[in-house]
Parts: sequence; structure tokens; C-alpha cells
Amino acid sequence: MADFRIDPWAVEGKVDYDKAVKNFGISYIDNALMERIKKHTGELHYLLSRNIYFAHRDLNWILDEYEKGNKFYIYTGIAPSGSMTLAHLIPFIFTQWLQEKFGAEVYIQIPDEEKYLSKKNIDLDTIHRLAYEDALDIISLGFDEKKTKIFFDTEYANVLYKQAVRVAKHITFSNVKDAFGMTNETNIGWIFYTSMQAVPAFLKSVEEGHNVPCIIPLAIDQDVHFRIARDVIEKLGYYKPAIVHAKFLPALNGASKMSASDPLNTIYLNDDVDTVNKKIQRAFTGQQATAELQRKFGGDPDKCVVCQYYRYLFEPDDTKLKQIFDSERSGTLLAGEHKKDLADRVNAFLADHRAKKEKYKNLLNKYILR
Amino acid sequence: MADFRIDPWAVEGKVDYDKAVKNFGISYIDNALMERIKKHTGELHYLLSRNIYFAHRDLNWILDEYEKGNKFYIYTGIAPSGSMTLAHLIPFIFTQWLQEKFGAEVYIQIPDEEKYLSKKNIDLDTIHRLAYEDALDIISLGFDEKKTKIFFDTEYANVLYKQAVRVAKHITFSNVKDAFGMTNETNIGWIFYTSMQAVPAFLKSVEEGHNVPCIIPLAIDQDVHFRIARDVIEKLGYYKPAIVHAKFLPALNGASKMSASDPLNTIYLNDDVDTVNKKIQRAFTGQQATAELQRKFGGDPDKCVVCQYYRYLFEPDDTKLKQIFDSERSGTLLAGEHKKDLADRVNAFLADHRAKKEKYKNLLNKYILR
Repeated sequence: MADFRIDPWAVEGKVDYDKAVKNFGISYIDNALMERIKKHTGELHYLLSRNIYFAHRDLNWILDEYEKGNKFYIYTGIAPSGSMTLAHLIPFIFTQWLQEKFGAEVYIQIPDEEKYLSKKNIDLDTIHRLAYEDALDIISLGFDEKKTKIFFDTEYANVLYKQAVRVAKHITFSNVKDAFGMTNETNIGWIFYTSMQAVPAFLKSVEEGHNVPCIIPLAIDQDVHFRIARDVIEKLGYYKPAIVHAKFLPALNGASKMSASDPLNTIYLNDDVDTVNKKIQRAFTGQQATAELQRKFGGDPDKCVVCQYYRYLFEPDDTKLKQIFDSERSGTLLAGEHKKDLADRVNAFLADHRAKKEKYKNLLNKYILR
Repeated sequence: MADFRIDPWAVEGKVDYDKAVKNFGISYIDNALMERIKKHTGELHYLLSRNIYFAHRDLNWILDEYEKGNKFYIYTGIAPSGSMTLAHLIPFIFTQWLQEKFGAEVYIQIPDEEKYLSKKNIDLDTIHRLAYEDALDIISLGFDEKKTKIFFDTEYANVLYKQAVRVAKHITFSNVKDAFGMTNETNIGWIFYTSMQAVPAFLKSVEEGHNVPCIIPLAIDQDVHFRIARDVIEKLGYYKPAIVHAKFLPALNGASKMSASDPLNTIYLNDDVDTVNKKIQRAFTGQQATAELQRKFGGDPDKCVVCQYYRYLFEPDDTKLKQIFDSERSGTLLAGEHKKDLADRVNAFLADHRAKKEKYKNLLNKYILR
């Protein structure tokens, strides 16, 4: 990994997902595995069939257990730092689908200390306010009120801290130093933090008093936490959690990962119509310099951010997506109309999402564990 | 400090309290300061007049504030690892007296993760059971039900963890590494732990929304936590806590500190009559080799563990204590009778303490914050 780095605090360079798979010791989700999932779900979510959730740990084991009648639960989460972005939605859209198809319980951790400890300038009260907003954004995606538990680290620490202490006892500073690139000047809260993130991966087993399989959908930069925690969780006597890894939604400028800390190249769920239009207007498409050249030589949908946004979020229909990609390739679709159409879809999605949030507002407390 | 070391995990060599005062940058409690306390309390507790609570940080400031009508609260605690020992009683006896004389609220932290993280072989459930026993031992010393709050770290982490995170952000691994003698192989829970111990020193200020002075009675080995935390607490906008430091109750073999992990040289609150008799029978007195020589040359009450136990715990009357010390010095008191008398007093104290525990059992829940 000399030329790029993937961890929760730095996604640098052009991400080479093949290299990540090799270096992290994870496996591709191949066709056989997709077929195996489809046997249970009836259909494949496009996030799977389009290789966005593209890699895994122990997914076959999770399905073995499921087929034996040993149902899994799902753990995912988000560390609040501002309004959620389109990229943040991906694990939750996928998790909601898994919940629906497998009837699975979902644990959503909102670590409201994470960005306070890892960033310079954000205070805990601000994060706490954002955490509630994030929770509302999440449940509005359609999570089952009876099967979804959301908790904030600081509020739910009377449950989480004890279990985090059990994890922490088996992790040394050497372990996290190497994995997270920490130094002696790293603060001790940040050093400890990964223990908190590990807890929901075995919490249900603690609660039930027997082992319950767990699967974690995450973006690949979060894998590092579980490279350490999986072995510790096994030492504590629980199942290692399975993991499914997503690629990153690109930033508007074509960078590998949309990042909440780069506002110009990120679409937030609270961006208004005008802002969305302007941001997408500036998006990187990689099209030729002029309309004439574009018609002659065409573009590359794999590099075109607009095409990728259709692929990740805004065109679930594969036939229609193919049409979009083909017209980008052939040069018949010009950047202007292309961007206009995407911006309209994004704005329609955001308007609909906001309307749902209004409906879910009064339900929020039913999801939150305290 | 080349020849001895005082920190919460190692009291080695013969403790040189004068050197500790110098190295830690703390101050002696001198006669003027004792008189100042006496002005408010009417009398001096023997733990003060006998220089057992012998040093301090900012005790004059606490009294300044008190005299301005700004009352302080008291914070102390104990990390459970087994039955409490006689040594463990000292801060609580002193705290209870301060509570009574100053009408102060008391916060008692029982860090039920501390020994799990710092020792090899103790599990969290065992500690949790011990923690409740410790709490009962403590309240049975006569703490005011309306002014005393006890909390266990794992149970009360929904309050403590958030504040610990605020502390942790300002402490680096370098800071704790040097102070506590940690290495890269130290577990990350233990690295984080000092942040949890810091919280009760400003928790009341958080709760009240304005600054409340805090004083911490502790044995001198715990000072290291606050050498780090006091500056951080000030950075967070709260008063630095004042501290009063106690010397160690010696072990039965004459070692500097009675340690719960050395059973033969320690008296536990749950030791039975026989065990107490036998342990004290073996106590180090430093008396001469024979009764004849002892009568001729006498002993040294400063070195005699039996004399010291009278001084620390079992003879509150100064006149009577002087008689005991004098007869040790003159050789008229022989080890056998001396030990017999002490063992009787210890057993009487323990019997009385157990009777009190029975009475307090049903009240315990009123003291515990959850």
C-alpha cells in the first residue's frame, strides 16, 4: 500500500480496491455468493449486483448459520460531524434492504465522541445535536421500528463502556499505533475509541446470553477497526462478526471518496435546490473539451462522477443505467443535460427525504436506546 | 526519586515522604493550616494532628472559598479487588469526618474497571460483586444518606464517559506513559482509565452549571492521576481540585504500605477473629530479641507496626497513645501483651463494623447513583 492509504481518517490517492482486498485479507463477493444471497432475498440489491458492496469477511458463514435457522443481526453506524452526505446513505440503504429481506434486527451505533476525539474543532454539544439529526435521517429510510435500535455512545455508555473495557484489555498501544497510524502525541480518548466501536458487534450475544451472528455493512475504510476487534471478540468467546465492504461514492471533483469535510465536492442532505444545482454543475465528468469532440470521441462513464452517482444512488434500474452509460460512452449525452437530469433527481430525492423526516420525527424516540 | 517510587501500582522501597512532597510539588499541612481548619471544625481529627494526612494542594484556597460562603464537596473512591482492608478505611474515615464538620456533599467513585485493566487475573463480574460490598463497608462508617453519592464506573458511564472523553482529549499517550510508567504494550483501556478517575473532581460543577470547589482526600500514591488531571480540569474551565494526601498504613511485616495483594500482611474487613489474632501475632514490632533485652533497651514506636496501628486507627485518644508509645520506648510493654491488646481492639472494631453493615444493608440503594 505504498501509493494509497485506506483508514478511517485518511483516504489518500486513487483507491486501488484490488490491492485493498489483498492487503486486508478480505474476499470478493463473487457471482456464486451473489446467487446464494439471491436464493434468500429473491432479488439482488443493485448495491450488490453493481459491485458497490464488493468484498466481505465470512459472508458464507453468516449464510450457513442463517440456513441452519441461526438468524443474524446487523450492526452499522455513523460518526456525526455535520449534516449527513449522500455517501453516508449507502450503508443505511443497504442495511435497510438486508433488514427487510432477512427480517434482521439492526443495531445502529452513533459514536458521538468519535469526531470530538479525532478532529480538532468540534464540540460535544454540537455533535450531540447532529447525532439526533443523523438518527432521524437514518430511520426515515424506512427502518422497522420494532427491529431497529439506535444508540449514542455517551448516552448509552452505561451499557457500552463495560463491554468496551473488556475489548480494550486485549488491545495494546502497539496494536492501534500501527493500525491507525497513531503517535505518542495522540490523545488517550482516541487511543481507546476503537474499543467502543467494537462493542455492537457482540452486544446482542451479551444481551441474549448466547452467541448471535452479526454482520457489519461498512465502507472499506472502517475495516481497520475490525481487523483488530474480530480477534479480540473471538477471544472473549463470541462469534467474529462478518463484514461486507462498500467502495466509496466519489467526490464531485472525481476524488476517490466524498468527504463531509470538503463541502464544495459533497452533497449534504440539507443542501437546498440551488446549492445542489450549483454543485452538480461543477461536477467532474471527464468529458471532452467541446460538445463537438464529445460527440466524436465520447466519454468514460467509469470516470464520470455524474454516471457514478446514477450507479450508486439515482438509477436503480439496470437497463436505464446501461442506457445512460452507453450514451456517455458514445458521446450522445452532453455534460449539461446530463448534470441537469442528475440534479433534478437529487433534488427530488432530497425533497422526498425531507418529507419522510417530517413523518418520522415523532417516532424517533421509539428507536433510541437509553 | 531514584531509591523509591510512589504511584498507584508500585510503592517500592522505604517511602521517603519528604522527598515525595518535594518531587510532587505538594505542601505540608503545617500548624497554621491545622489551626485554620480547627477554627471551623472545633477539633482536629487525629488523622490530621498526627500527620497522617500530612500534605496538600490548594487547601488554603478551599478554606478561602469556604469562608466566602462557597462550600466545597468531597471526592474520594476505591478500586475494588477483594475485601477492603484496614488501610482502605483511612480516606473514608477522614472523608466522613470532613462531611460531618463542613456539611459537605461526598462523591464516591468505585471504578469497577480499574483492577480489571491494571491486573492480570480478575474478572469484571467478580469486581462488580466486590464493588457493592465495598459500598456497604463505606456507608457503614456513618455517611450521611442525603449528602453522599456512590457510583460504579461501568453502571454510571452514561454520565461519566462523556466527561472522561473531554478530559482524554487533552491528555496524550506521552503524558501517561511518563507519569504511570506505561509502555507500548500497555492495554488501551488502562491508558484511557485516568480520564475516568478525573471526572468526579469536576462533575458537580458540570451538574450545577457553575464552579463548585472540590477537595480530594487520597493516599499519596494516587496523586499522580491529579498531577495530570488538575491542569486539564482547569483547561475545561473548572476549578482545579484541592487534595489532601495521606501516608500509608504499614503492612504487618513493616513494609511501607499495607497492600490488598499481600494477604499475610494485610487485615481485611472480613477476616475472622482467629485470622486477626494470628496475623497480628506475627506483626513486626522491632522489639529486642528477648523480653529481658526489651526491658533493658526498649523499642521504637515509629518502627513498631503495632504502635502504628494504634496511631492510625485504634487509639484516637492522644494521651493514651502517648502512654502506649512511651511504654514501647521504655521497654515496659512486651510484644505479646501489646499484640494481644491490639488484636482485641481490631476484632472489636470489626465486629462492630459488621453489625453496622447489617443495619446499613437496606439503605445501600439510597446512596447509589445509576
